Amino acid sequence: MSRLEKQLALLIEIDKLKAVLRRTRIKSDNARLENSAEHSWQVALMALLLEEHANEPVDIAKVVKMLLIHDVVEIDAGDTFVYDLEAAKSQEENEKKAAARLFGMLPKEQGDELLALWHEFEAAQSPEAQFGKALDRLMPMLLNVNTNGQSWREHGISLEQALTVNSKIEKGSTTLWDYTQTMLKDAADKGWLK
Amino acid sequence: MSRLEKQLALLIEIDKLKAVLRRTRIKSDNARLENSAEHSWQVALMALLLEEHANEPVDIAKVVKMLLIHDVVEIDAGDTFVYDLEAAKSQEENEKKAAARLFGMLPKEQGDELLALWHEFEAAQSPEAQFGKALDRLMPMLLNVNTNGQSWREHGISLEQALTVNSKIEKGSTTLWDYTQTMLKDAADKGWLK
Repeated sequence: MSRLEKQLALLIEIDKLKAVLRRTRIKSDNARLENSAEHSWQVALMALLLEEHANEPVDIAKVVKMLLIHDVVEIDAGDTFVYDLEAAKSQEENEKKAAARLFGMLPKEQGDELLALWHEFEAAQSPEAQFGKALDRLMPMLLNVNTNGQSWREHGISLEQALTVNSKIEKGSTTLWDYTQTMLKDAADKGWLK
Repeated sequence: MSRLEKQLALLIEIDKLKAVLRRTRIKSDNARLENSAEHSWQVALMALLLEEHANEPVDIAKVVKMLLIHDVVEIDAGDTFVYDLEAAKSQEENEKKAAARLFGMLPKEQGDELLALWHEFEAAQSPEAQFGKALDRLMPMLLNVNTNGQSWREHGISLEQALTVNSKIEKGSTTLWDYTQTMLKDAADKGWLK
């Protein structure tokens, strides 16, 4: 296979991400479940819009790149609900295998670069990864607030759970974490969080 | 409204793009119609994968940014089928209005920057816009080829139409245009294009 054929083969393989459903419901289209492909678009665009709120200056192109690829592993490993802490543990190994398989479809040096970027995001140590992770956590909460807390109510999530699970937002952006806490307390007042 | 509130308001407004359906069918999920949000994700990621095939060196971060925002105007203006040349004419004015409204929701200088970027893409003159447009044309054809030409067959598209409408790919990438021509002729041989 030529370089182009390998690249196009991956591009078609990741089309499957459009069929991976998340627990979040979208605001439009009768609040149907969101898929991971459209989520990836929204959170990448979110990075462009909210760059100024990162705790440290970030290479925003790198954040966008991370967010465009961060969920492709779900093609093999499925989506894990952020509040399912048990599933999250066993998920890690499956996602690593998926990343190796998918990026391994590319020409070697290109695949290695994207695999390293995927691992950097997962490690959540660099400013880019921490800011990207913060956005990835905030986006579904914004959708929840804009659908009367529908996903929280369906899964019986409490204010305490939401504050604990999402507290890492602070590492990427204290501004967004302040905003999140106010938003979650307001959601609890409305009865959307237990 | 604070800067953050304006940015988040746009982020929620563009959630509507997930409900804008295209004519293309996706490969997975029983070949349902694709929405413009998931298309935007795939074509932005495509830019990262295929950068080396651009005719001229491009600022790839700019191409990705263009592709992430290029379709948001469809929230107001709807999606235009690429083969509907009459609709395309009247669409231009609607899309310009939509871009002004949507990016106008942002803090002034941020909105102006994204509006300029959107116009640059539409003008298709810069290397980044020409490469981005090439990808935007090629992606639905790849999905067509991977769904036995389903959208072409549904709409009775001919080989000649496909070659004419997509010939601008050459401006962004002669490599991808060569690939496209071979792919389209092969699709015609299979009876997927008239």
